Amino acid sequence: MTNRTLDAFQSGLADGWADPTRLHTESRRARQLLDSAREAIAEEIGAQAEHTHLTPSPHLGLERVIAGVYAARRGRDRIVASSVERDATLHAADYVCGGALTLVGVDHHGHLDLDAFAGELEVPDVALAAVQHGNHEIGTLQRLDAVAERAAAARVPLLVDATASIGHVEPPEYWDALVANPADWGGPAGLGVVALRPRTRWLPVWPEGDDWAPGGVNVPAVLAAAVALQERREQLEATSVRLARLVDTIRAAAASWPGVEVVGDPDSRLPHIVTFSCLYVDGEALLTSLDRAGIAVGSGSACTTSSLEPSRVLASIGALTHGNVRLGLHPGVTEADVDRLLALLPREIEQLRREARAPEIG
Amino acid sequence: MTNRTLDAFQSGLADGWADPTRLHTESRRARQLLDSAREAIAEEIGAQAEHTHLTPSPHLGLERVIAGVYAARRGRDRIVASSVERDATLHAADYVCGGALTLVGVDHHGHLDLDAFAGELEVPDVALAAVQHGNHEIGTLQRLDAVAERAAAARVPLLVDATASIGHVEPPEYWDALVANPADWGGPAGLGVVALRPRTRWLPVWPEGDDWAPGGVNVPAVLAAAVALQERREQLEATSVRLARLVDTIRAAAASWPGVEVVGDPDSRLPHIVTFSCLYVDGEALLTSLDRAGIAVGSGSACTTSSLEPSRVLASIGALTHGNVRLGLHPGVTEADVDRLLALLPREIEQLRREARAPEIG
Repeated sequence: MTNRTLDAFQSGLADGWADPTRLHTESRRARQLLDSAREAIAEEIGAQAEHTHLTPSPHLGLERVIAGVYAARRGRDRIVASSVERDATLHAADYVCGGALTLVGVDHHGHLDLDAFAGELEVPDVALAAVQHGNHEIGTLQRLDAVAERAAAARVPLLVDATASIGHVEPPEYWDALVANPADWGGPAGLGVVALRPRTRWLPVWPEGDDWAPGGVNVPAVLAAAVALQERREQLEATSVRLARLVDTIRAAAASWPGVEVVGDPDSRLPHIVTFSCLYVDGEALLTSLDRAGIAVGSGSACTTSSLEPSRVLASIGALTHGNVRLGLHPGVTEADVDRLLALLPREIEQLRREARAPEIG
Repeated sequence: MTNRTLDAFQSGLADGWADPTRLHTESRRARQLLDSAREAIAEEIGAQAEHTHLTPSPHLGLERVIAGVYAARRGRDRIVASSVERDATLHAADYVCGGALTLVGVDHHGHLDLDAFAGELEVPDVALAAVQHGNHEIGTLQRLDAVAERAAAARVPLLVDATASIGHVEPPEYWDALVANPADWGGPAGLGVVALRPRTRWLPVWPEGDDWAPGGVNVPAVLAAAVALQERREQLEATSVRLARLVDTIRAAAASWPGVEVVGDPDSRLPHIVTFSCLYVDGEALLTSLDRAGIAVGSGSACTTSSLEPSRVLASIGALTHGNVRLGLHPGVTEADVDRLLALLPREIEQLRREARAPEIG
């Protein structure tokens, strides 16, 4: 967390401690803080405050928004999603529609197959389509204008998972429902954001009296999330240009190493994520050796609790699913950090291949 | 929050910031902090750490534990609960069992009608019974030994809502599933605790990959919750004796005012809660006048977002449901605070009655 975000958290601890649903003065103050923080977040993500909801986590936000939009589309029982969505999206969708989930494939860069997507939506039994903005694992940004056009033509509401993109690039414009993750933009964990367009129909699918955040949210955490997002957005241009340049350097270097494949769209992508797969290398071993050198990276799918399972996203784009390294560059990463990584990585990869007695790479 | 709790939160912000589900060193450190905090909480509430789960809120904990235990009792479709449970419990139960919820009444002090309870459990279609430990509104502590005996005889799992009691009295001993609320013991909001006995059967009722806290919990908040509970429990004896004496003073004074009824068990009760109803007084007006004098109290039901609806709990015990004042004394309340309140209250009540042209009270 930056100092400004931490300050917001701490002033929230002082001022926003009371239960905002009660009536007395302290609670009113907490409620005002909560409302203005939500308004600030809504503005930054391009949503209307009264249709922007806070949830206890992005996962729960996905679960509730998918269930809510699905319930309002009575009579239609299928959900269509891209094959590179997060596990959380696919699991929630599968749970809500009782297995009637259709996945649409992507090309080698991870872009949705638009014709196949439109074809699936032609059958009038689709309750909801889910397509992410930026991929958490390979960084590719979907062409949401074209995706939304197909969804609108079929009158199917489009849920956009922006949990990996907001705070790193301009927020997406084309969506009927949106989910965002404050922890991804430098805010606190344990908070999610759901936004709906005023026209998007949904029904509450939870016990009476609950809302999007049953029992309420942590007010100081919401303040910190709002400040963190504002700070990110103020520096977005400068940070993203700088990180994208570092990522370009890493991509170019990695592509020159034998038996290493750099994945994800080289241009239309999140500025801070770079992923490559290394032939004949065990992901866990590479992770451990980097970790020992003080470099924290996530190998394997960034969205699962076990980071060691083969990546569904990499399989979807037809890349190597083992021995992959996913780097998420936070705004503080320097050129020197990258130089150090690039000096270390090829040596570690070679070392691991020798230990595994891997065949020579031609 | 106390200073110790705040310190725990802040050291958590420094050390527990990484995602505890990842593999690298920082994440391992966050996971260790999380595990030891959960162990500490489990020990304080008399549960086993491996059967103690953190949730994003007590509400969500109630929803998930009710759904989970219910799902494991396949073929039994009814839920039995006391009529003085929290709205959150009753709404979650009603939602889970699709309306097959039976409420069992209480006596004038708010104690469950044990014979009626046992009678309801005789029919072998009961999936779950829910009875609270301490009532959030009138302070009465249920006789859980006798309640649990009835539930065990009928082989019905007993869910105990301890969200108003843990941190104020010794934790309950008799339960098959337990829900607790860190915010109630001086910890942060936006966190719940669910504990199960090793023998209590439940099934996950949520999307694949989720657990009790979909997307994880805020690690610093869990650390703060653990420290706050330890601190409360260290001072429990001293604090509860002191607060109970203040509550006795308030109860005695209020009982002497004309047209005022003090409610809840005078002996077997939470030490910090005192509630009384005032004839011919508008709850909102009384609340506003106390708030103006700088005294924050909750009028009406403590568990609903609108504190102005008539209280179901007060209706259940046959008390006045309007013009009620519920005081929750936090550990810092002094004798001087109570003196000030007791000087102010009868004057305000009289003033409001005059304004409302209430009839003379004989």
